[in-house]
Amino acid sequence: MSWNTFGRVLRFTTWGESHGPAIGAVVDGCPPGLALSEADIQPFLDARKPGQSRFTTQRKEADAVRILSGVFEGRTTGTPISLLIENTDQRSKDYSEIANTYRPGHADYAYDAKYGFRDYRGGGRSSARETASRVAAGAVARLVVPEVRIMAYVAEIGGDSIDPANFDADAIVRNPFWCPDAAAAQRWEGLVDQARKAGSSLGAVVECVARGVPAGWGAPIYAKLDADLASAMMGINAVKGVEIGDGFGAARLTGEENADAMSPGKDGPQFAANHAGGIAGGISTGQPVVVRVAFKPTSSILTPVASIDRDGNAAEVRTKGRHDPCVGIRGTPVVEAMMALVLADHKLLHRAQCG
Amino acid sequence: MSWNTFGRVLRFTTWGESHGPAIGAVVDGCPPGLALSEADIQPFLDARKPGQSRFTTQRKEADAVRILSGVFEGRTTGTPISLLIENTDQRSKDYSEIANTYRPGHADYAYDAKYGFRDYRGGGRSSARETASRVAAGAVARLVVPEVRIMAYVAEIGGDSIDPANFDADAIVRNPFWCPDAAAAQRWEGLVDQARKAGSSLGAVVECVARGVPAGWGAPIYAKLDADLASAMMGINAVKGVEIGDGFGAARLTGEENADAMSPGKDGPQFAANHAGGIAGGISTGQPVVVRVAFKPTSSILTPVASIDRDGNAAEVRTKGRHDPCVGIRGTPVVEAMMALVLADHKLLHRAQCG
Amino acid sequence: MSWNTFGRVLRFTTWGESHGPAIGAVVDGCPPGLALSEADIQPFLDARKPGQSRFTTQRKEADAVRILSGVFEGRTTGTPISLLIENTDQRSKDYSEIANTYRPGHADYAYDAKYGFRDYRGGGRSSARETASRVAAGAVARLVVPEVRIMAYVAEIGGDSIDPANFDADAIVRNPFWCPDAAAAQRWEGLVDQARKAGSSLGAVVECVARGVPAGWGAPIYAKLDADLASAMMGINAVKGVEIGDGFGAARLTGEENADAMSPGKDGPQFAANHAGGIAGGISTGQPVVVRVAFKPTSSILTPVASIDRDGNAAEVRTKGRHDPCVGIRGTPVVEAMMALVLADHKLLHRAQCG
Amino acid sequence: MSWNTFGRVLRFTTWGESHGPAIGAVVDGCPPGLALSEADIQPFLDARKPGQSRFTTQRKEADAVRILSGVFEGRTTGTPISLLIENTDQRSKDYSEIANTYRPGHADYAYDAKYGFRDYRGGGRSSARETASRVAAGAVARLVVPEVRIMAYVAEIGGDSIDPANFDADAIVRNPFWCPDAAAAQRWEGLVDQARKAGSSLGAVVECVARGVPAGWGAPIYAKLDADLASAMMGINAVKGVEIGDGFGAARLTGEENADAMSPGKDGPQFAANHAGGIAGGISTGQPVVVRVAFKPTSSILTPVASIDRDGNAAEVRTKGRHDPCVGIRGTPVVEAMMALVLADHKLLHRAQCG
Repeated sequence: MSWNTFGRVLRFTTWGESHGPAIGAVVDGCPPGLALSEADIQPFLDARKPGQSRFTTQRKEADAVRILSGVFEGRTTGTPISLLIENTDQRSKDYSEIANTYRPGHADYAYDAKYGFRDYRGGGRSSARETASRVAAGAVARLVVPEVRIMAYVAEIGGDSIDPANFDADAIVRNPFWCPDAAAAQRWEGLVDQARKAGSSLGAVVECVARGVPAGWGAPIYAKLDADLASAMMGINAVKGVEIGDGFGAARLTGEENADAMSPGKDGPQFAANHAGGIAGGISTGQPVVVRVAFKPTSSILTPVASIDRDGNAAEVRTKGRHDPCVGIRGTPVVEAMMALVLADHKLLHRAQCG
Repeated sequence: MSWNTFGRVLRFTTWGESHGPAIGAVVDGCPPGLALSEADIQPFLDARKPGQSRFTTQRKEADAVRILSGVFEGRTTGTPISLLIENTDQRSKDYSEIANTYRPGHADYAYDAKYGFRDYRGGGRSSARETASRVAAGAVARLVVPEVRIMAYVAEIGGDSIDPANFDADAIVRNPFWCPDAAAAQRWEGLVDQARKAGSSLGAVVECVARGVPAGWGAPIYAKLDADLASAMMGINAVKGVEIGDGFGAARLTGEENADAMSPGKDGPQFAANHAGGIAGGISTGQPVVVRVAFKPTSSILTPVASIDRDGNAAEVRTKGRHDPCVGIRGTPVVEAMMALVLADHKLLHRAQCG
Repeated sequence: MSWNTFGRVLRFTTWGESHGPAIGAVVDGCPPGLALSEADIQPFLDARKPGQSRFTTQRKEADAVRILSGVFEGRTTGTPISLLIENTDQRSKDYSEIANTYRPGHADYAYDAKYGFRDYRGGGRSSARETASRVAAGAVARLVVPEVRIMAYVAEIGGDSIDPANFDADAIVRNPFWCPDAAAAQRWEGLVDQARKAGSSLGAVVECVARGVPAGWGAPIYAKLDADLASAMMGINAVKGVEIGDGFGAARLTGEENADAMSPGKDGPQFAANHAGGIAGGISTGQPVVVRVAFKPTSSILTPVASIDRDGNAAEVRTKGRHDPCVGIRGTPVVEAMMALVLADHKLLHRAQCG
Repeated sequence: MSWNTFGRVLRFTTWGESHGPAIGAVVDGCPPGLALSEADIQPFLDARKPGQSRFTTQRKEADAVRILSGVFEGRTTGTPISLLIENTDQRSKDYSEIANTYRPGHADYAYDAKYGFRDYRGGGRSSARETASRVAAGAVARLVVPEVRIMAYVAEIGGDSIDPANFDADAIVRNPFWCPDAAAAQRWEGLVDQARKAGSSLGAVVECVARGVPAGWGAPIYAKLDADLASAMMGINAVKGVEIGDGFGAARLTGEENADAMSPGKDGPQFAANHAGGIAGGISTGQPVVVRVAFKPTSSILTPVASIDRDGNAAEVRTKGRHDPCVGIRGTPVVEAMMALVLADHKLLHRAQCG
């Protein structure tokens, strides 16, 4: 099945292929009366845009968004918001060789197995280009949760982590890695340059923190806030793992170590720690919501990898197109967008039931 | 919002509280004509049942399932299958003290923040008792995917991992930990006993492998097989992390290391490795589907933890009820059930679109 | 497919067959804190219950409802409310003859064509007994919309209509037909008695009016209030037509005749007429919401009808079970329940988006 | 709430306002491999297009559709199909006067009551222009059900019905009314001309018959084929009533008259009649699926109607824009489209559960 809609009451549907004329998103269920123009969306698309530094793919896309519906006299009307982004830099010839060969690590074989054939140009629908639609939709979602401040950053590249002691939120936008640790950013320059020059690629871990989420958002049992975040993040291209709060680290703690002790505060409880990542029983506790997301290394590499062609014969794949040496970097604004979309949906869901 | 239905075409809805008269599940969309009786479900409930060894809670529940609808003359009719499990061992008095105090790490505070009040007896709806309903529903789902063999096991307790070299699938049912490494199982006896006697608790990591999943199941973009698995697993009580294939480990590999090279095989491609955990682009590749799930340590511990009461005053919580020293153990059959439910749903979804 | 859930945020799932051990409903998404006990539900079930007069089937069912979850200390907790009604008067032998023959007008053949076999006892899942679950769920929905007053009544039996000039709301509960026109009720006694004695059956039209619905409920474009009502009503057993406001009559009016002129009123606009039945553009206008529902005559009749058996051979069907001579009568409380369920869902949906 | 998606597995989402830059639809879940180009869609849009005769609105729209995604090398890929139709003939000035006044019978007041303000140009989202998106989506759905032949026609205008004895399917496309009765078509010319010249409007009844639907499509209990058709049709602009088969007429029949007797046939049962309209228990029987849809007269008329303005003051509305004297005429291709969309969805749903 094809299932291109996400969300329960604030829903968005995306469409489009890497090398078609355009991609887009339709955001449905947005509250009326919110001030919205292209200028509210474009900065987030620019943050994700390729070609911003030598550390991301050199494909050049303007990624200029147009709002085709749902806004009147500068405000959302409550009707569906159609967002359109034209594809402008398509070099389909880059992909002609691989029309008949399956790139290991990519969705080529899986799409063919499912659908019988595929739009092979740039990965078609399975291209990470689709995430631009998410970022555009996420920009709308942010307007629905103005009380929330979302911050994502890269915490690890190629196994080299940031030092929490060096954490500086202001540093995040001052380097091409969304890195909050200036020293790590400097190390990563060398690391990613090396991979880039070698035609290799690196994995990354992205963290995302949402502050200002009030206690009470979430929908037990099968639309838990953490479950929906897990789905939202795991569905991003190249993601292989999701943690809430301490995540896998929690599995190595004792009950005493993991306890988030509470004490009286003036605005609800104070928590001595946030091992839980701001979610208990699938419902927000008022603490920061913390998610960690693992991106695998880009599958497109210059080193030849053994593979097969569409007829089942042995083949060798060596990707020559323009690719990200570390897809996690450009994944950072996508993680932020998905966080915004999940939180906005749950804010409205909570209001539906609890007023 | 309350959202107690999971799935897209094969859907199940669960209901019930820890200390109400019963809990249950309604499974909808099951194909007709499958042989089904209580005997097909009971063994899975028995595997999850409390009180099987000294390493799990001593609460005694028969967990006897009754099929109330959807089966006629021993076969599913295609109409909803209502499954009911009576609660038999309720000691509500165990919980009377905590009616007004929030247990750190539990959903008590979050439920109150959301709903204004809560059924505090045994955690009410947020109790892990709900997972019995999932296991019952999962037993039905297994019948929908007879081509798939699902195996879950505990891979780590309290930071002590199994040794892959010792892996023995037959060992899993021979120890009270669902442990495939006999040596590790022996170590864990000491570990869990110590935690149990100290009134402490331990986290765990559960792995689940599904073999026989054909290439082509999954629903890009927002119902990807891995995204649905992530949602399914993250929604289990006490789960804080989910990985597909190499998961967070993949973030530390290079593109070359992570490549799952392919070669011609007699039944589709052969893969040299399975870093991807059997899923690419959200669609199964025909390799084993591999999921890893992190369980935090049980939040109920004897050591007093600082907390607050419903009026916002400081309080101290020391849990005296009967609890699991390591909730991941009994989580293992739940992980299997959720795997079965996701795969069965995707098999039907795939058939819907692709015939 | 089997799809036994209705609603978008306030959802209910029903299960159970006519001759299984029980039937039931799970209501999910109900706001917390509402006072609810079996006594709030039972009167509505009693109103639908068979055997209340000689004009309905003589099957005797206590239709006693039990609340199994979602209520604590007399109030809804916001978690799923499981409602169970035991089947007590099953005479499966009545149906043994028709196990292999398709009753014309019934779902027998269609179920077999779809599922390959069927639970033939009393129609199994296709029995109107399922509507008891709707009525129970509807009683919960009523608590969600206390501002709304719902009144359904039979407006026509066997082609004999009430006279609007005789309309007396108080009369509705004073006769066994839910008839607001005492004179018509008297005529219907003869009409229905005649059909009953002849083993024949009659159709009916039920009208339902909901007062107090504020302007603004409804969800354009594909969850319009009228579209959801149409779906809700058309899905009731034996229903073949649904009208909103003037319905098919509106197709015979001119634009001038059909105009619902507005004038200033102290609480929003005054309307000179209500041809639209309280809904414009799929959204409530603040006027009474008016729905008309056509019930076909019961298909079970004593006169033999030509049919076929499961092997495709000619057969003759003559229904000897206990049946309603006019199923529309007992459909009246079901229509009310579906109205309540749709309105409650839309109240919450509206609150989700518009606060 | 805003809810612009229809369908369960074959789903489509529409967006766009009457006077925005464009409108469109995203069709998701379409099976892969179907031959599809704009030429498969355009004829259906042309059939609905305004300005085809003097009996419809003189607004001139090219209604040229573009496929932006989901098709590769002339075939559907299984990914979402984005369809875009530019708005070319917008005379917003026609509507400037009514920005502050509510047109009776239109959604103006309801939208304002719901959303606080509205895009008043041409009715914004509530304009019947939205139905072009449905027609485009419906053209895709037709490809999913090639075994089905769908035929809709106008059966009544202004209370003047066709004579079944004159029924000639070939006549439908030979007159500007989609009328299968040449004599009636001639009478309607006078009738509609008169209304048009008087600035008045007329209602209509559209019938739609789908032949070739196999027995077994439909999803009891809450996605019955007839319930979904009722929702699909009632949600079309100006529709106030829906009947399946004999509809309200069935309420005036006896059980004997209404029985659709069956006899052995070479391809399944033969039915002596089709009072049921091809659906029993919510499941198709193999007979033609028959739906009747009542359209109210266009609310836009030249005769002044009393109304109120946004501030609640008395006002008078006299619509001077270009409008259809009988909106049911152009509704005919929309009814066909919705029939195709419901049937295609149910074909896939049936395949999901029953293989």
